[in-house]
Amino acid sequence: MASSSPSMSTRFAAFYFFLCVHLLQSPAYSNVIVLGLPPKPDPKDAAATARWLTAHNSWGVLSTISSELRGAPFGNVVSFSDGLPGYGRGIPYFYLTELDPTARDGLKDGRSSFTVSEYPLGTCGKIDPEDPTCAKLTLSGKLKLVDNHSVEAEFAQNALFAKHPDMKGWPKNHNFEIFKLDIENLFLLDWYGGPKPLTPKEYFRYEEKEIHSY
Amino acid sequence: MASSSPSMSTRFAAFYFFLCVHLLQSPAYSNVIVLGLPPKPDPKDAAATARWLTAHNSWGVLSTISSELRGAPFGNVVSFSDGLPGYGRGIPYFYLTELDPTARDGLKDGRSSFTVSEYPLGTCGKIDPEDPTCAKLTLSGKLKLVDNHSVEAEFAQNALFAKHPDMKGWPKNHNFEIFKLDIENLFLLDWYGGPKPLTPKEYFRYEEKEIHSY
Repeated sequence: MASSSPSMSTRFAAFYFFLCVHLLQSPAYSNVIVLGLPPKPDPKDAAATARWLTAHNSWGVLSTISSELRGAPFGNVVSFSDGLPGYGRGIPYFYLTELDPTARDGLKDGRSSFTVSEYPLGTCGKIDPEDPTCAKLTLSGKLKLVDNHSVEAEFAQNALFAKHPDMKGWPKNHNFEIFKLDIENLFLLDWYGGPKPLTPKEYFRYEEKEIHSY
Repeated sequence: MASSSPSMSTRFAAFYFFLCVHLLQSPAYSNVIVLGLPPKPDPKDAAATARWLTAHNSWGVLSTISSELRGAPFGNVVSFSDGLPGYGRGIPYFYLTELDPTARDGLKDGRSSFTVSEYPLGTCGKIDPEDPTCAKLTLSGKLKLVDNHSVEAEFAQNALFAKHPDMKGWPKNHNFEIFKLDIENLFLLDWYGGPKPLTPKEYFRYEEKEIHSY
């Protein structure tokens, strides 16, 4: 018994060592652990896939029409949330300051797109970020300021602060305000064969309990 | 000795277990291991920081003016490369097909921006993706097709295929072509106090040996 115990423990150590190396080599698994990410929906289910991308990403690129660059598009990295974790509704809410060109431009010309990728979620594994099976979603529509005293603002602020707790402490004198993207068009690539047809109605038809079932 | 050995091995196993948990909780460390990422430059060095972001990201969001969406901005997830690993030159090269709206739109109206974030590199740790100290870079200019028979096309193809080996096998009948962004303007946020002043000349003045010294 005295001689078998060290061998058992050594094997135990070796198991954790190789598990450790395996997990570090697998961005998918490491992100599943970090974010508690539910499994990716079947790529055939465009609405579920799009909602999964919106619900589980924490940041994306918000593109507006730049007045400074005389009408050229300008993409900016922003944090967002579409609801409390597990209760996403599909509308991306942002916390922006007019010190930043994106909010300033969006208030002048609301035409915007918001782009997220499956890649940073870690579930693409070794698939190239541009490969269509590594899903990507562009939501297009109008960027709008959310009325600060509305029920929607309360929902949005809870959603944002739950996903981005640092926001609570962002400088008051920067006048951060809640914006949302009013979605008019969706562009989803999640498999070969071009973008999936997906209307805002189909995207939004998911009820909360269906979101839970992801 | 017989009784101390299992204890040693158990402690060895425990060490790997906690190391494993620690590494999984630290996206920075796991990405450093996966990508072999050189340290982030001093945020005071705007050019070095911008070049580091371009050199070490593998994907970003390319925004063009959408003809389908009547002039609205459209951001799309794309892979890119600015050179062989360690030999980046700062110009982002893309491998795009006109089956995708970004290439079609870019050929009609070249005004584009390309956005990358420090966040997916893992070095932001627990800093929020929108926090200015989690660096973000938007390169603006004109999207241009690279002449297929030029020396630049050879450089760009080597750069792209080295970083994205899957591209070599992408369907020939999709007619992927090499595009680049001719940079006219840079927007870099890498610290508090607003975007860093940075001209294309300053961004490009880095010689290869300086890039190596990152």
